[in-house]
Order: sequence, then C-alpha cells, then structure tokens
Amino acid sequence: MSVLVVGSIGFDTIETPRARAVDVLGGAATYAAVAAQYFAPVRLVAVVGEDFPERERAFLAGRGIDLAGLEVRPGPTFRWTGRYHENMNVRDTLDLRLGVFGEFRPQLPPAYREVEYVFLANIHPGLQASVLDQLTRPRIIVCDTMNHWIESARGDLEALVRRVQLLVINDEEARLLSGESNIVRAARRILQLGPSSVIIKRGEYGAVHFGPDTVFAVPAYPLEEVFDPTGAGDAFAGGLVGYLAASGDLSATGIRRGIVYGSVLASYTVEDFSLERLRSLSRDDVDRRYRQFVGLTEF
Amino acid sequence: MSVLVVGSIGFDTIETPRARAVDVLGGAATYAAVAAQYFAPVRLVAVVGEDFPERERAFLAGRGIDLAGLEVRPGPTFRWTGRYHENMNVRDTLDLRLGVFGEFRPQLPPAYREVEYVFLANIHPGLQASVLDQLTRPRIIVCDTMNHWIESARGDLEALVRRVQLLVINDEEARLLSGESNIVRAARRILQLGPSSVIIKRGEYGAVHFGPDTVFAVPAYPLEEVFDPTGAGDAFAGGLVGYLAASGDLSATGIRRGIVYGSVLASYTVEDFSLERLRSLSRDDVDRRYRQFVGLTEF
Repeated sequence: MSVLVVGSIGFDTIETPRARAVDVLGGAATYAAVAAQYFAPVRLVAVVGEDFPERERAFLAGRGIDLAGLEVRPGPTFRWTGRYHENMNVRDTLDLRLGVFGEFRPQLPPAYREVEYVFLANIHPGLQASVLDQLTRPRIIVCDTMNHWIESARGDLEALVRRVQLLVINDEEARLLSGESNIVRAARRILQLGPSSVIIKRGEYGAVHFGPDTVFAVPAYPLEEVFDPTGAGDAFAGGLVGYLAASGDLSATGIRRGIVYGSVLASYTVEDFSLERLRSLSRDDVDRRYRQFVGLTEF
Repeated sequence: MSVLVVGSIGFDTIETPRARAVDVLGGAATYAAVAAQYFAPVRLVAVVGEDFPERERAFLAGRGIDLAGLEVRPGPTFRWTGRYHENMNVRDTLDLRLGVFGEFRPQLPPAYREVEYVFLANIHPGLQASVLDQLTRPRIIVCDTMNHWIESARGDLEALVRRVQLLVINDEEARLLSGESNIVRAARRILQLGPSSVIIKRGEYGAVHFGPDTVFAVPAYPLEEVFDPTGAGDAFAGGLVGYLAASGDLSATGIRRGIVYGSVLASYTVEDFSLERLRSLSRDDVDRRYRQFVGLTEF
C-alpha cells in the first residue's frame, strides 16, 4: 500500500561543532519520503520554488516517489540555517526564510485521496487537518508537530490530535504539550487529548511508544559519531509509516517493528549531512541494521 | 553461590523537589547488598559507628545478609546530605561527614576469601584493590567508582580496572574517565584500560553494556514518579551480581539477564526514599517486573 507524506521541502545550512554544510537538501517531508520508500510507494505533497534543482527532483523521482503532489510556485524554496551545540540534542535556528512554503496549502491530487497510510510532517496543525479532510479512507494517521505550534496554535493542534492514531513528538514537545515533566505522565496526559498512541522521541536515547495499556521502549543505535541530527525524527516517522504500509500490520507487534525500522532509518540519517547517507543506503543495509537492533536489545 | 559486597553504609538526609527525609538508611553497600540478596546469599564488608541502630542491623541480618564482615568502630557512622534538582539526574552534596568510614580498611573474614562473585561499591580504588588482594578465586569482579577518584586517584583506578571484569559507572563518569563525550567512543576507550566490559548507567534512560564485540542497551522502567534516585545505581549493581551468582551464567546472555534484573531492582529502589521500597519488596515483585521488562522491549 502507498504512503502519503505531507510537509516541508527545503534547503538547510547546518553548522555542527565539527563541520558545516551549505544549502543542502532538507525538509521534513523529504527525509520522511525517502525513508518510507524503502518499504512502500510514496506519494508526496509539498511545495518548492522555481529554484528547486532538477537534480533533486530527479533524486526523489528516481526513488519512485510520486511527485504529482509536488507543487512548484514562483519564488524561493524554504531555507533554514541552524547551528548544533556540542550536545547535539540542542540547536539554534540562525535564519529561517519561508519562501513559497509560507503559501503552502496542501492539495491532494485525486489519486492520493484514497491513501490509507499517512504521515503529516510538521506544518501548521490547521493545514494538517485540511489534509485529513481530503482523505476518504485513512487507516492510520501518523502526525508530528513542534513547540511553535504547541505555543501558538494549541486549539488547532488539540482538534487535530483527536483525529490521529499516532502522535510522534520529542520529549521537550511532550513536556510542553502536557505540562508534565515526567515523560510517563506526559504521555498519559497526551493520550487523554485523543490520539490512540504517542511516540516520544529522545534523540540519542531512543524512543518510547505509549498505547492505552502498553509501553515499548527502544534505544537509539549506538553510534561512534552523530554527524548531523537534522531529519532524524522525520526519517524515523517515514520508516515507521513505510513499514506499516508494507506490512499492513497495525497490531501492537507491527507498530513495534515499525518503530525499530524507523529507528534504523534515523540512525543512518545522522551518519552524514542532509540525506547523503540515504542516497547510498540499500534495503539490505536497512535489514542488516534491523537485525543489529535485535542483537542490541534481546536478553 | 555467595556474593561479596564491599562499600559504604551510612545515613542520608535527602531533599528532593517534593519531599525530604532525614537520617535514613543509605550507603552504596547497603543498597547493593539488599538488592543482591533477592538472588543469592550476601556477605557484607563495611564499617559503621557505635551509633548504628540495632533495628537496621536486624533488618540486614533478617534478609540473610552475613554481617561477620561488618566492623563496628568507635565514632559516628558515615552521613551524607544531598539535594536533588528538578531534573533528578542532578544533585548537590550539601554535607558529608565521613565518621568511621574515613578509617575503613576492608578486612575480609577468612570465610569470605573464597567468594567468587564480588561487587566493589564506590570507595577509594586503592582500598578496592586491597579487597582483590584478599580473594583467592574470584570469578567476576564488578566495580563502581566516582568522579572524585577519577580526578584524584587516576593511577590507582587505572591499576584497579585492569583487574576487574565489569566496570559499572554512569555516563558522566565514563566521559571523565575516557575524555570522550560520545558514549560509544567513551566505552571503547575504557575497554582499552583493561576491564573485560563496561556498563554505562544513564539514569532515566537506562543502561548500556559494552563488551569487546557486543553492545546491549536496556531502557529504564518507565515510572510516573521517581521519588528518590539515591542508591539506584548500587541496587542495579547488586541485582546484577546477585543474579550472576545465582545463575552462574557469565555468558553474554547471562550478563544481559543480570543487567535487566539490576534494572528491576533500581526501578523499585527509586519508588520511595532510602531502602523503604525494598523493605516490602518480594521476589515475586522482582520476577513480575522482569517480565514487564520483556514486554517493554520485545518486538
């Protein structure tokens, strides 16, 4: 089954304590779509400017990603400049230029409306809701958000999360959304808002999935170097929803395996700047690291 | 098989953001011994002052802990006062009174010298080494330390860790000992110092075990409230070495299971001040939470 990915495409300028990359391919939807296509066909809804290079379009198309929903508008593509601290869980935004992304109003091509597996990457929750309004038979909606919307659009966000099956946010966002500092209590409070389950991402410490009666924790893959954390969370969500679409298994076990595949994609993503590592990554690589996750956690 | 535990016994005055406890039973050896005795007979080597109450001695003896190695000296028992921050991974020492612990020179009763399973809780590495000198046939030495010794007694510590099979330290200590901020590189560097393997404790994020060719990560048990983190690391090590002594299984799988049992004991310990939760904890409780760890991590 296909996966629908809706979100941002952009160019990032990234400084880490040890390196710098200028105007490299980024955007939440980009990472998620490329991660998801290891498992299932992907349909992408996003917007770029007329400056979006043919070679990047060819990269996405070459991965079999359906670009019928990729709108091209006059004006510049979204650009973000950020700097990571020595502790790479912390970053500062140095510059943000929305460009045509500021006019993004997701419109699904008719053929996309019957997609059952959906990842709503981080955009305004009102726009995320407008995507749900266009779907005829979604089976699982996986949804991300960010601090900015929790603070500035809480009403829209709370209305949205009642309609999603799986909210995927990081620990800081979970604390902000719930008002609870303890992560277990934060998750319980978030489930009261309506989503069937929530995944709390904890960067180098992995992720925890809370359902109504179950908890599943997976560590991050232990890496000797995290080169660039950008996009890890989106690759995680893309890998997860891609696996779910491929397997069709939305049982507790299916979601757990999807979370591990998501962790695999996230772990590869951070091994290089931008999507560089994913450009050369094979499905065999993905399956090999999945088996390493088994070895990392079994007792 | 028996376990030998060597370390401190004391009284703690503890402030957390939500509560305070005065002069409650503490000390690394206390937590470790009580945790280990769920699995195996424990022989304790420690020192207390003449003020050590009969009721606490009776508590330890009532758990079957052999107190032949518990020295009573004239003077006061070790006392520690600490305050935890809102982030309970961080604490300040407000007061420290060594009392008779300042004169602690571990002497093993003759019957203890043949013990094969050993936990050296945090004391001066020279004193830890003196314990090893008294053992006739140790099978596995599990060893803790602290920042203070890494900074002030590095030579003694490096000589010691060459003689231990399993170093158990927290992430901050691992970074200080190795000079590496990345935890995987820190572990590799520490293994070069000589221990066969190292466990890096990460508080609410669990623990990671690094052997020469293997990595095992276990999350912490997700708790809605961490009441008092004091002693969690010692209960972890005690549970681990206790399980190893009971099973005799020092294979990679055996050590992994021991790490999970250690995590079980740590998770209960933090549910109340001091050793309060352990006073009422049954072996059935331990086994039940072990099964919950299976459910928490399997996929």
